[in-house]
Amino acid sequence: MGRTHSNGYKRVSDFFPEIQYVPELKAVCSRREDKVRAFADQWGYKSVETDWKNIISRNDIDAVDICTPNNMHAEIAVAAAEAGKMILCEKPLARTLAEAQQMVDAVEKAKVNNTVWYNYRRIPAVTLAKQIIDTGKLGRIFHYRANFLQDWTINANLPQGGEALWRLDADAAGSGVTGDLLAHCIDTAMWLNGPITDVSAVTETFIKERMHQESGQVQKVGIDDACIFHCHFRNGALGLFESTRYARGHKALYTFEINGENASIRWDLHDLNRLEYFDHADDSIVRGWRTIHVTDGDQPYMDKWWVPGLSIGYEHSFIHQVADFLKSLETGEPCAPTFRDALETQKVCEAVLDSAASKSWKETGAEEFQR
Amino acid sequence: MGRTHSNGYKRVSDFFPEIQYVPELKAVCSRREDKVRAFADQWGYKSVETDWKNIISRNDIDAVDICTPNNMHAEIAVAAAEAGKMILCEKPLARTLAEAQQMVDAVEKAKVNNTVWYNYRRIPAVTLAKQIIDTGKLGRIFHYRANFLQDWTINANLPQGGEALWRLDADAAGSGVTGDLLAHCIDTAMWLNGPITDVSAVTETFIKERMHQESGQVQKVGIDDACIFHCHFRNGALGLFESTRYARGHKALYTFEINGENASIRWDLHDLNRLEYFDHADDSIVRGWRTIHVTDGDQPYMDKWWVPGLSIGYEHSFIHQVADFLKSLETGEPCAPTFRDALETQKVCEAVLDSAASKSWKETGAEEFQR
Amino acid sequence: MGRTHSNGYKRVSDFFPEIQYVPELKAVCSRREDKVRAFADQWGYKSVETDWKNIISRNDIDAVDICTPNNMHAEIAVAAAEAGKMILCEKPLARTLAEAQQMVDAVEKAKVNNTVWYNYRRIPAVTLAKQIIDTGKLGRIFHYRANFLQDWTINANLPQGGEALWRLDADAAGSGVTGDLLAHCIDTAMWLNGPITDVSAVTETFIKERMHQESGQVQKVGIDDACIFHCHFRNGALGLFESTRYARGHKALYTFEINGENASIRWDLHDLNRLEYFDHADDSIVRGWRTIHVTDGDQPYMDKWWVPGLSIGYEHSFIHQVADFLKSLETGEPCAPTFRDALETQKVCEAVLDSAASKSWKETGAEEFQR
Amino acid sequence: MGRTHSNGYKRVSDFFPEIQYVPELKAVCSRREDKVRAFADQWGYKSVETDWKNIISRNDIDAVDICTPNNMHAEIAVAAAEAGKMILCEKPLARTLAEAQQMVDAVEKAKVNNTVWYNYRRIPAVTLAKQIIDTGKLGRIFHYRANFLQDWTINANLPQGGEALWRLDADAAGSGVTGDLLAHCIDTAMWLNGPITDVSAVTETFIKERMHQESGQVQKVGIDDACIFHCHFRNGALGLFESTRYARGHKALYTFEINGENASIRWDLHDLNRLEYFDHADDSIVRGWRTIHVTDGDQPYMDKWWVPGLSIGYEHSFIHQVADFLKSLETGEPCAPTFRDALETQKVCEAVLDSAASKSWKETGAEEFQR
Repeated sequence: MGRTHSNGYKRVSDFFPEIQYVPELKAVCSRREDKVRAFADQWGYKSVETDWKNIISRNDIDAVDICTPNNMHAEIAVAAAEAGKMILCEKPLARTLAEAQQMVDAVEKAKVNNTVWYNYRRIPAVTLAKQIIDTGKLGRIFHYRANFLQDWTINANLPQGGEALWRLDADAAGSGVTGDLLAHCIDTAMWLNGPITDVSAVTETFIKERMHQESGQVQKVGIDDACIFHCHFRNGALGLFESTRYARGHKALYTFEINGENASIRWDLHDLNRLEYFDHADDSIVRGWRTIHVTDGDQPYMDKWWVPGLSIGYEHSFIHQVADFLKSLETGEPCAPTFRDALETQKVCEAVLDSAASKSWKETGAEEFQR
Repeated sequence: MGRTHSNGYKRVSDFFPEIQYVPELKAVCSRREDKVRAFADQWGYKSVETDWKNIISRNDIDAVDICTPNNMHAEIAVAAAEAGKMILCEKPLARTLAEAQQMVDAVEKAKVNNTVWYNYRRIPAVTLAKQIIDTGKLGRIFHYRANFLQDWTINANLPQGGEALWRLDADAAGSGVTGDLLAHCIDTAMWLNGPITDVSAVTETFIKERMHQESGQVQKVGIDDACIFHCHFRNGALGLFESTRYARGHKALYTFEINGENASIRWDLHDLNRLEYFDHADDSIVRGWRTIHVTDGDQPYMDKWWVPGLSIGYEHSFIHQVADFLKSLETGEPCAPTFRDALETQKVCEAVLDSAASKSWKETGAEEFQR
Repeated sequence: MGRTHSNGYKRVSDFFPEIQYVPELKAVCSRREDKVRAFADQWGYKSVETDWKNIISRNDIDAVDICTPNNMHAEIAVAAAEAGKMILCEKPLARTLAEAQQMVDAVEKAKVNNTVWYNYRRIPAVTLAKQIIDTGKLGRIFHYRANFLQDWTINANLPQGGEALWRLDADAAGSGVTGDLLAHCIDTAMWLNGPITDVSAVTETFIKERMHQESGQVQKVGIDDACIFHCHFRNGALGLFESTRYARGHKALYTFEINGENASIRWDLHDLNRLEYFDHADDSIVRGWRTIHVTDGDQPYMDKWWVPGLSIGYEHSFIHQVADFLKSLETGEPCAPTFRDALETQKVCEAVLDSAASKSWKETGAEEFQR
Repeated sequence: MGRTHSNGYKRVSDFFPEIQYVPELKAVCSRREDKVRAFADQWGYKSVETDWKNIISRNDIDAVDICTPNNMHAEIAVAAAEAGKMILCEKPLARTLAEAQQMVDAVEKAKVNNTVWYNYRRIPAVTLAKQIIDTGKLGRIFHYRANFLQDWTINANLPQGGEALWRLDADAAGSGVTGDLLAHCIDTAMWLNGPITDVSAVTETFIKERMHQESGQVQKVGIDDACIFHCHFRNGALGLFESTRYARGHKALYTFEINGENASIRWDLHDLNRLEYFDHADDSIVRGWRTIHVTDGDQPYMDKWWVPGLSIGYEHSFIHQVADFLKSLETGEPCAPTFRDALETQKVCEAVLDSAASKSWKETGAEEFQR
């Protein structure tokens, strides 16, 4: 994630020259000095730190970007907020709702700019979906479904924990696919379709034990390898979500679909420049799903890039979020999703895990995103 | 359905000349004489009846095909079994598990040949999926997901009940999408992946009241417009099922996907001649989902049809089932799915509706299909 | 082809009950008595003949359907016309333009009903393409492209000639892919986009010698294994056509696309129920190719089949042509494409082969199809 | 193009840190001072020039990147070569074969490093195609087809010429789609499948007159709006190429396909991360086109980017070419395609235009690329 964010900061001015703020890469921090120095050299950071507290205490640093494993988010964010620094935090906001609430309290008390890297909102095709939905074209919404399917942990010999595999370690990650992948799906879903009110979930851990990278011991796996839930949205729609790292053949298949009375929309991360759109208002004999190649200058963010038909990629979503964050400094408006927005997503994640553990429906308590 | 079945009986000998039994269209029955006579004329039935009991009592009739609304299945089937007639029954077997059990008891006591029209098993691509799975190529199964999405009842002015719309009338149909659409998905799923052991479901009725065709009164809608459930399979896989008639843009999108340790398979009714297959054993740099156009002579049933590349359609699945039923008369083997197999599906449907009503997980008690 | 045609005659009344004429399968003819008798038994022909002249001389036969290798078309058709019989002839009409002209002269002199089995026009999606084009929605046409790609003759050990492989034998077939596959593409193209005026072609024979089935001798291969041509249409559009039996991975990939000023259309035989349509009049941000699943009752021929979303197959195009032929007997209108229409296609085929042989552009002399 | 190249120079070190050379953006040149200064500010060029000769004469500049309209390529390149500068030149190399030859002579005499921006070779999926072909897996090659379809010049009110629309002006561009789009297709084709030996082409100019931006006069349009040609490759394969700017619905649809005896490959710029691959060696019942999502670390260039499943875009091909160019400085190997390679492509373009003008086949004289 350090690379996608760094790339975002370095490219934003080339493609968004109208933005007055220009990020400066003052310092990068990581515990291993050799690695962090190499990273700083490669990416042009002016200094390195091996203790994140030094970042917080430096006066030449205005904004902190938290890309650590999830178990460090809260402590760093609270300290950064107290030091008056802007914060950009990787998702999920925290391991637990309690941690997340603490972080929200801290940034709101300190009144510091804050945002969370739910980057998929800023894939142009996804932003276009939001624009279409906001026109009201879909009418009453009946269904929302999303999944995020991967297959990279099927091998039982893959260890858990350590620098590369902390996502498999419940202590570091908080949860498995729920916090890592479903959190993305939930953020997009509530952005597009409003709050999820209650959930019924099931989780599964297919490989029960794995060697831990750091201890070398075979230990119980504490994360959810897969999670499925259905739910209600406040607007009356039914929702359906699934995530797994055991779907052979899918590398990072994040898809969502929304079905309204008058129109439907779907999207797929493996073909991220396209949006599919069905409009029941089309003449019946020529009615069908449209495949929109979202690469024209009148489509979101695409006036910044190439000519129609020429694709952009995954990392552009981060550049867009940097751009929007910088613009928010100019306008004084929050840069969504804020920590508070991410708290709503966290409520749903927590309810999902609670529901799976208790085998019962759970209310989420989630509210509308602010925007 | 009368047309697809009649077509099946009339075509089977042309394409399966090796089968010794040749169906004779002795009689067709329906309450309205003018309509049934017209149908008989069109399709070449030799006589008509307006009371189904006459069919049962006729000695020149060996087999009864039940295409009525679901509320008539049990009574007719029990009577037919007692009269020693072979029975081919439309799906779902019955409105309720109790009715279905009665029917199974009747055919088993009478030892009459029986089968249920879960026709999608006999789409060649679906049959091929079964063959591949039976080789063991997929390894341990992690996930099974299926949906059946339609959009034909979104219009709130559509009435319920009567001849054309009995599927919207809970008395006639028993349930909505659960019995009509999910039953197909469950039959395929348990055929491919074994018994579903427990389920957690949610249902929704989006349009709460509709005029009834027969009474002319606006009445409460008793059926489920949409149903979603997740579940466990006995083999440890997680399952996910969704069906609705409110997914704008989808006419009859029945899809399923199965993810194993080593390979995955998916299929889509809108493109029914194709099967998608992912084999992790392929060389990594050229590994990808394969789109198999299932139209070659060495693929299931396709030696009966055209040259490679030339498609068949929906109704062929019925012709194949007629062929297999006739062959079963020669071999003495049951023609799957039998009433008993369909009972297992009925158990899952009933557990799904119970789960949705009680907002809790339910055991299904379903067993392996016999085959 | 005998099977697809027979199936057409036998199914038409079931699905088009409004048509007063009902085909009777009086006789089937083939040189080998055992084979033709088996075929007659399977399909329900009332008698068999082993000399086609007997068919012509029988008074109980009103219509003759010619499914022989191409080298027999002209002789049979001329005799049948002289005997006053209606003729349905497989495509291409003949091996050469001269033969085709003779056949046209014969049917026009005899004033007998006639049609040629360019069946792809009557795939509902293709018929829908025609309807859309006829509305003028596409505006000025710039491009038409089509290909028909197969891969079944790549194996060098495949013999030529004989009953099964006469398509590889230049004497029997007249040409290779040009008459067999491109003829289909040309018929559709001129139906949709008007006459092709001049062509520039290249042909190739990749496997130069093959054993002949009948002689057992290794002989020079006389047919074109592949043929490509570009051309002008009378309306100013550029055309591009390609056919081959050496495109590994394509079983029967017939596709066409037409690009107009305002809209474009494309189609693919491997997914024959779908039509793709692009309408530039759509709002720019939601503009894209539409995938139309042509299975609704208001789309061509589809009121005769199943509910929306349920596919039909290849053979249905023949049933539709039988239906239209029978209707033409009621209305007195010709059933397109007539022999005269097929003559126009033959002109283009001949010009294509001439162009390839002479390595120069050739005028086709083709005229508009009759309606 | 200035943006894609500048982006390439600025990003290369972030993603290819192992390369010792780091581009410095010394100067950017354009005739309009205000525009070039704004561009320099945006992209971080250290100085600006408004006369390209100043670039040539500056001693602090080692490499010149030519992004001008085609009519300036030769003069600048020859001067740069004589000044001993490395040259990276936009495609097509020149307007005519004569100009191109001059440029090749100049760089070869001066022995300066040189490359031409046929960037599509370095889309990872395309590079993977090359790797697969080089293994010999395809066997004897029968067919190669490519097209490049756009729709941006359909509007008859679009003017020609000037800064933005020089591609429509024959003086500036040399030709229309042949040099602009088919040149890409030809470069890829000869890289993958060897020299094209002879061609038969047709061109069309659909809009005959357009207002010229600079003169304000309505003038004859001199470019080819569309060009189609078929050809032979030296290896015996048939080729088919089409390009147009009048294919409504296609923004930048560059596709190619190659059919070998044993396997086939195809690719599509609108979905550039995917490669489709058909391997006849697969078991027949599960044989089908594979869709390879080329985003894994063992696929070309992809170890530099993100995790599997996450896409890259169009501009990455330029970053890859910069990387390969810089590596070529380390290794002393040429960076393909060199000016000499591009000359071979130019020979084919010239033969294509000659063929279209003379309505006859033309030999190309093209040779193997050096690599």
